[in-house]
Amino acid sequence: MKNLKLGSLKKIEIILEGAYAAFATDLLDRIGVKGYTIINNLSGKGSHGFHDGHLMFNEDDVLIMIIAAVPESLVSPILQGFAPFYSEHSGVVFISDIQVTRMVKFSD
Amino acid sequence: MKNLKLGSLKKIEIILEGAYAAFATDLLDRIGVKGYTIINNLSGKGSHGFHDGHLMFNEDDVLIMIIAAVPESLVSPILQGFAPFYSEHSGVVFISDIQVTRMVKFSD
Amino acid sequence: MKNLKLGSLKKIEIILEGAYAAFATDLLDRIGVKGYTIINNLSGKGSHGFHDGHLMFNEDDVLIMIIAAVPESLVSPILQGFAPFYSEHSGVVFISDIQVTRMVKFSD
Repeated sequence: MKNLKLGSLKKIEIILEGAYAAFATDLLDRIGVKGYTIINNLSGKGSHGFHDGHLMFNEDDVLIMIIAAVPESLVSPILQGFAPFYSEHSGVVFISDIQVTRMVKFSD
Repeated sequence: MKNLKLGSLKKIEIILEGAYAAFATDLLDRIGVKGYTIINNLSGKGSHGFHDGHLMFNEDDVLIMIIAAVPESLVSPILQGFAPFYSEHSGVVFISDIQVTRMVKFSD
Repeated sequence: MKNLKLGSLKKIEIILEGAYAAFATDLLDRIGVKGYTIINNLSGKGSHGFHDGHLMFNEDDVLIMIIAAVPESLVSPILQGFAPFYSEHSGVVFISDIQVTRMVKFSD
């Protein structure tokens, strides 16, 4: 028998240039993120409201968005892990609350 | 005259292999979901933090994300509807709170 | 020295036909949105739960989603700015709460 349970997690959306995809997924693996989904071939412009007009990427850049659902305890390690990267490269990280379906098996 | 109202809904993000797109949209139609948007050609890996390391999809799989905004009353039917599928196939469903613009017409 | 701070913003997701991308980004620029990311080549159907079954776009339409993170003060100008467009064209705007990494430099 199966029962559906919802788990509260943090959704992390990491936008960066596609050239750095392997760097980013390796970093997530090392931090202990067990899975992610990647949206490829994004375009973008600007700073998402931060950095006071500093241009973060041009419209012609090929960007990706890496989406992961993680326990709250991993948010800080992820942000700390990406901080050196974002001090030199353009991009942004979004964090939001989500619920995720969790399959729980009950034996009879 | 038009006035903008915001409605609180649940955003459902359904990630699954693209081969099952028609199954998923048919199921949503039957449940009464009136619209959705599909992001095609995602790549992904792993479990989004659940299933204890059970590999849900490989990086080479072609995944899609179906995004729908639904009333809260439809969340449980959607999750129940997809449960048999996810017991046999990889993927994940994210649920989050959103507001959606709703156009309301006022006659004079 | 760098310290990571999180800023609370509103995430705006604007879904519309790709033919109107330039209109939309020009409008965002004029409103003062400093950056955005665009997901191209979406497909979609229907109304996202509004408009009582009024078909907003067909599955064959090529849609885009423009994602921006903005201060709450910009939400209303964006919705007001897009209202005339959405009275004549299909699409939807999602609004949700997010946190965004903000790099803050501290001098010693």
